[in-house]
Amino acid sequence: MSKAPNPARRRESSRRAILAATAELCSQFGYGRLTIEAIAARAGVSKKTIYRWWPSKGAVALDLLDETATVAAAPPDTGDLAADLHSMLTEIIGMLTPPHNAPGPGVIAEALHDPDLARELRERLVRPRIATFRQRLRRAQDAGQLHPDADLDVALDLLYGPLYHRLALHLGMPDPAYLHSLIAHVLRALTPPTSSAPH
Amino acid sequence: MSKAPNPARRRESSRRAILAATAELCSQFGYGRLTIEAIAARAGVSKKTIYRWWPSKGAVALDLLDETATVAAAPPDTGDLAADLHSMLTEIIGMLTPPHNAPGPGVIAEALHDPDLARELRERLVRPRIATFRQRLRRAQDAGQLHPDADLDVALDLLYGPLYHRLALHLGMPDPAYLHSLIAHVLRALTPPTSSAPH
Repeated sequence: MSKAPNPARRRESSRRAILAATAELCSQFGYGRLTIEAIAARAGVSKKTIYRWWPSKGAVALDLLDETATVAAAPPDTGDLAADLHSMLTEIIGMLTPPHNAPGPGVIAEALHDPDLARELRERLVRPRIATFRQRLRRAQDAGQLHPDADLDVALDLLYGPLYHRLALHLGMPDPAYLHSLIAHVLRALTPPTSSAPH
Repeated sequence: MSKAPNPARRRESSRRAILAATAELCSQFGYGRLTIEAIAARAGVSKKTIYRWWPSKGAVALDLLDETATVAAAPPDTGDLAADLHSMLTEIIGMLTPPHNAPGPGVIAEALHDPDLARELRERLVRPRIATFRQRLRRAQDAGQLHPDADLDVALDLLYGPLYHRLALHLGMPDPAYLHSLIAHVLRALTPPTSSAPH
């Protein structure tokens, strides 16, 4: 109590404490048992402080996700399309694993009922990733590695869809071997039959 | 009050009233605002009656889904694989549309946090559909329409995954033209490159 705290710094330190408490509670007890009360208690702030900045626990968890998962400005491009897709998908698998105590599936579940949270999720987390994904596929298409008629919207669904399907139905996230097979199948769908297959 | 009601018939009539009330409330206000209180009030039963048979609103909604969406004992087989896949996927799209007021996405959201509900969802609704789906694809594979090495688990993910992906990220359910393109891409992934494409 020796000095009056700087309000901006104090705000930032509360924000950090709230996000850290949310991460710890998620990993210990799972998103389903997360409450604003528990976050406030662990972070040493009042519930009012949390509600001043976030409308719901889903919004707190979304900020946590947004901080922990940075989006690359440009997609990976090692020259090996399959390997680059493998690393992009592995990042998303990390955000969705393990399902019961990660904030990712919690936010997705809340967003199914909460249109405002769904919009934030889409604009802040999903669109930037879709953009880098399309950029990588477009480059491959321009280089003749993909069929000129391949539908890149369908390609997005084919590559990312299985993760959400397996998440929703608790079928387990793909392991590396399964991911390899998935990518090989999708590239076969997108590759001109007469050309040689990419690496 | 002229006759004492038959207990079994009364139970069945309460059960029907509860499921009907759940369907009406979902379609009017959305699953997110559904409560056991509201179901009880609309069905004219006590909350205790509901909790005697179901542990949660998710479990009521799961029973509603299970009643309204019957699974065919065998997959459609018109001889046209693409058309048969189109009709199987269209059924699932119906269960997931529109997202905000259908019980399907509500149950999926709850199941992300509730392992017991997830198990019920998987065993009662998902597995029987996966089984007919695999049966149809296996038949096509045996007939040489699909590559002998095509991975049918991957095929399941490729065909159903996009629906869950689009649901989770609020990207909109596929329309018939998009579904047609999706199926064409997936069949290209599964079809031997030397054979002629299926219908």
